[in-house]
Amino acid sequence: MINEEVKKDALLRLKKVEGQVRGIARMVEGEKYCIDIINQVTAAEKALNMVARIVMKRHVESCVKEAILKGEGQEKINELIDTVYRYSKK
Amino acid sequence: MINEEVKKDALLRLKKVEGQVRGIARMVEGEKYCIDIINQVTAAEKALNMVARIVMKRHVESCVKEAILKGEGQEKINELIDTVYRYSKK
Amino acid sequence: MINEEVKKDALLRLKKVEGQVRGIARMVEGEKYCIDIINQVTAAEKALNMVARIVMKRHVESCVKEAILKGEGQEKINELIDTVYRYSKK
Amino acid sequence: MINEEVKKDALLRLKKVEGQVRGIARMVEGEKYCIDIINQVTAAEKALNMVARIVMKRHVESCVKEAILKGEGQEKINELIDTVYRYSKK
Repeated sequence: MINEEVKKDALLRLKKVEGQVRGIARMVEGEKYCIDIINQVTAAEKALNMVARIVMKRHVESCVKEAILKGEGQEKINELIDTVYRYSKK
Repeated sequence: MINEEVKKDALLRLKKVEGQVRGIARMVEGEKYCIDIINQVTAAEKALNMVARIVMKRHVESCVKEAILKGEGQEKINELIDTVYRYSKK
Repeated sequence: MINEEVKKDALLRLKKVEGQVRGIARMVEGEKYCIDIINQVTAAEKALNMVARIVMKRHVESCVKEAILKGEGQEKINELIDTVYRYSKK
Repeated sequence: MINEEVKKDALLRLKKVEGQVRGIARMVEGEKYCIDIINQVTAAEKALNMVARIVMKRHVESCVKEAILKGEGQEKINELIDTVYRYSKK
């Protein structure tokens, strides 16, 4: 469950990513050097991954934790692992 | 060197990513379920990675190829490998 | 805390990865086609990532869960997030 | 096409990865702390990725370059991009 602190942090980061994506579009529009464009794309990917990180941390601190405390943690744990290791399925 | 075809494709994809990022912000605003937010972030990361892919393909087809044909390919090859394998440096 | 089931599964997978790595060495020795070698390396990376996945799942089901139940979960949660999102540090 | 230099480098690295994988198995056998095991798995993944890196560099310097010089580069370029961006298919 998102709280105010994570919401504020995530929205700020997402605003920045939006700006990065528009910046990349301007670089493409201006036919800038491909490797420079790709490096900016990688930076935006990393910034997005930070959003996933802070939201996941909050998720474990709230939803997963509460489910565990109620003795119903397994489903949340499975979901957490599936999300984090999405590229290596059983 | 970006050409018209790749420019058009990349700009279209970047527009979509911008929309995805705004959509994620709305999910955060609306305190949607964390895992759903994270899955949307992953989708936006993948869409960005596709932009890197099409720009890199064009780069190899133009800048790298021309440098090789002029007998000056090594620097471009080193740059290509550094960009693609950025998380595993020597 | 590793249990018998995860131990058996992980050891089996690690044995297979060892075999994959030796197989890649034979391909290199035999100067096989580079892309075929790289695809085998990627397969071995994925197999290793599966080991990380099953060990992490067990970790959350045991160490993290127990710490949460004892009211001492925060440190374990921070460690979990740091490990999983190692490429996107704050 | 693998040359002697890359062969020697790759075989040395693969030998080390084999040792790392056996080391991880000993950690699992000894029921070491899960996060320590996972960190060693990540290190082995990175070491494998370095093998992919040096083989790919050699591939671009030889097979891709020669195909470009013969005017037959497109197929090799497509293969290169498919291999490197395997997680983001069109």
